[in-house]
Amino acid sequence: MTPFKLTDELIGRIQLLIENRESGNLRSMMKEFHYADVAEIANELNEDEATYLIKLLDSEKTSDVLTEMDEDMREAVLANLSPKEIAEELEALDTDDAADIVGELPNDIVQEVISEIEDREHAKYIVDLLRYDEDSAGGLMAKELVKVNENWNVLKCVKEMRAQAENVTRVHSIYVVDDDDKLKGRLSLKDLLTTSTTTPIKEVYIPKVDYVNVNEKPEEVAKIMSKYDLEAIPVVDEIGRLVGRITIDDIVDVIREEADKDYQLAAGISQDVEADDSIWELTRARLPWLILGLFGGLGAAAIMGGFEEMISKHAILFFFTPLIAAMAGNVGVQSSAIIVQGLANDDLKGSIGNRLWKEMLLALLNGVILAILLLFFTWIWKGKLDTAVAISLSLVVVIVVAGLIGTFIPLFLDKRNIDPAIATGPFITTSNDIFGILIYFWIAKLILGI
Amino acid sequence: MTPFKLTDELIGRIQLLIENRESGNLRSMMKEFHYADVAEIANELNEDEATYLIKLLDSEKTSDVLTEMDEDMREAVLANLSPKEIAEELEALDTDDAADIVGELPNDIVQEVISEIEDREHAKYIVDLLRYDEDSAGGLMAKELVKVNENWNVLKCVKEMRAQAENVTRVHSIYVVDDDDKLKGRLSLKDLLTTSTTTPIKEVYIPKVDYVNVNEKPEEVAKIMSKYDLEAIPVVDEIGRLVGRITIDDIVDVIREEADKDYQLAAGISQDVEADDSIWELTRARLPWLILGLFGGLGAAAIMGGFEEMISKHAILFFFTPLIAAMAGNVGVQSSAIIVQGLANDDLKGSIGNRLWKEMLLALLNGVILAILLLFFTWIWKGKLDTAVAISLSLVVVIVVAGLIGTFIPLFLDKRNIDPAIATGPFITTSNDIFGILIYFWIAKLILGI
Repeated sequence: MTPFKLTDELIGRIQLLIENRESGNLRSMMKEFHYADVAEIANELNEDEATYLIKLLDSEKTSDVLTEMDEDMREAVLANLSPKEIAEELEALDTDDAADIVGELPNDIVQEVISEIEDREHAKYIVDLLRYDEDSAGGLMAKELVKVNENWNVLKCVKEMRAQAENVTRVHSIYVVDDDDKLKGRLSLKDLLTTSTTTPIKEVYIPKVDYVNVNEKPEEVAKIMSKYDLEAIPVVDEIGRLVGRITIDDIVDVIREEADKDYQLAAGISQDVEADDSIWELTRARLPWLILGLFGGLGAAAIMGGFEEMISKHAILFFFTPLIAAMAGNVGVQSSAIIVQGLANDDLKGSIGNRLWKEMLLALLNGVILAILLLFFTWIWKGKLDTAVAISLSLVVVIVVAGLIGTFIPLFLDKRNIDPAIATGPFITTSNDIFGILIYFWIAKLILGI
Repeated sequence: MTPFKLTDELIGRIQLLIENRESGNLRSMMKEFHYADVAEIANELNEDEATYLIKLLDSEKTSDVLTEMDEDMREAVLANLSPKEIAEELEALDTDDAADIVGELPNDIVQEVISEIEDREHAKYIVDLLRYDEDSAGGLMAKELVKVNENWNVLKCVKEMRAQAENVTRVHSIYVVDDDDKLKGRLSLKDLLTTSTTTPIKEVYIPKVDYVNVNEKPEEVAKIMSKYDLEAIPVVDEIGRLVGRITIDDIVDVIREEADKDYQLAAGISQDVEADDSIWELTRARLPWLILGLFGGLGAAAIMGGFEEMISKHAILFFFTPLIAAMAGNVGVQSSAIIVQGLANDDLKGSIGNRLWKEMLLALLNGVILAILLLFFTWIWKGKLDTAVAISLSLVVVIVVAGLIGTFIPLFLDKRNIDPAIATGPFITTSNDIFGILIYFWIAKLILGI
């Protein structure tokens, strides 16, 4: 495949074509591009240009392009379409994608858009999906799937399947339900084709099937599907009825988003932002953590102010506060990151006590190595052994405490069902800065006896 | 599905069964578990227990369990199997998984293991795959796929496909090649079934097919597959010959690993470690970054030592060094994280100059807000307006410089084809600490005129 590359030059050429209203050239140009690429192009245009471009495409491509576009741009383009036009796009989409788009529409037009959808079953499915929390298996699933009744025979089953499969892009699996629509198992296509046509499905289906509950968190669904290498998983409601199906492509998006979110939290960015967002959006995402850091710094300054009497005799102690704060912060981030990742991947076993004990040994080992280095350098630098010992000893204690805090906080948050990822980054750094400096001056004071 | 839960109690029960050599009970217990769950269980046992357990399973399950196990444990178990036994497991696996296992075997037994594989074509494929770099599309792909020659007719095609499909777990796509094995396109199953049996494939295949080169990076393959919602992608060599196929389940693993790696780098963890690794492994992953932080701290101390003459009149300046260092670090991490993420998701457009300009405005806005807060608090606290102004003004400059460094370094590394993710975390924090403190004292000195 010649990989598609979005260049300024390409955008410029397209803008020129739009400006000159060269619809023929534009249409044949777009025909060559994948819908995901057209969406990338549309994201770079202004609203009017994007609307003009989208309206040129044939309806099936338009709908796919719409699902791939950035939310802001999609809303802008949809605002320029009539309810009937939107309904036509929804018709061409799978129910999960259609429901996502309907969920973003202004309330006053939803009713009209839905009523314009000609396929009434499709409309009903979309409305069904609107009821589910976005952050659940129900919010991810599509209604498109192939299901057969356990009481049918093979012949009827094959006939029904053909009709159903027309609406389903990729079949993956055939699910078996009872008269109450409860999920009973799945059917192997091979068994179906090698069994006599009068055999009841009851006798050939495989009763073992993985499924998830409609209220399951997307992250959990992702874990199950990637652990068991599933490409699709059926979703059941509270009483076991088959209500939808989640496919792996949606899960890939969940995994990416989850990873991006944790990464941003660790970096002190509180909302889902991108480099291309406005300065105002970026400020809202970044400033709160910086203010937290500011107060942490004021706390540290206040602590140091409390030890001001030491400054005349032991100024050097004050020179090492950034070092102490940095080490406390780094160790805290390291230990919390490992715990957060272990929790996310579900591979933390053993008690909190064991974790803390292990982290203590680990921090002690690292702390002693670092303290020896520090002792050596400070002693050479200032020639005062007692100060060097005081600073180095404090460093060991600070590192151990920082490691314990970094280990404990995410575990504690997780036990309380709070996302432990918020414990990484500025939160841990700031609290460790304060604790670190406090411990440091206490110990120094103890050893130097002032 | 009753979700599988790995508990200490379950492990204890299994260990007891192993100890008492109750092979019958154990075997029927394992039959109920998915191979991914058996692998989780095996990871928690000691080597002898795991080997005993694995040897109990039927051969097909054993091989799947082996691929899902932790590398250390797999190596330990394989060391207890004869070359012939290992060969049998490899036979049951897809070529990509088999090649991964062979790649981990000690060199002296590889030859023997390969020669024990009965299916010589399977053995040849495995050996072929060993040649590819693990960190490339070739290292990810499997040899199992369904391909037909463009010169065949539909009848021959269907016959050949049936034979090939037996070795392929999930067919996904039928690829069309020419006599030189060059990838020409793909075949829709529907077209195949609705066309007369004597029609040449040449006339019905779809010439448009996404593919990747065998040397493509796994991250790029992941981007392409998730952008275009592909469940499988063919891999071609340098002259366009179809050499393998990558499926989405392998890509899910790539995405997870990539995210984990970036997260760990941002947290200052240099190797792929888990919470359950040994203290020694964890130390090797964590200590290098801490030593970097230590030297950063020593640098900061040296800088402050250079401004020692200010300490008698303006001790308060020294109290704010942790604040300045923390803010410089936090801003640097925030801005670098956004850039690293933008680069990873391929959605950074525009020049480096534009990026820096935007970050400058953003940092200036944040800096001014924070400086006003700081001015207010320090003025109230100490009542000295000139010191308060000096500290606050420095803060603005420090934040802007930190933001620019955080933006520039990952962009610069990326241009040089170095993974920009290493620029986040301790690296940025440490350099920003030093620059921040230096700038802070310079400006303070300038304003306070000492």
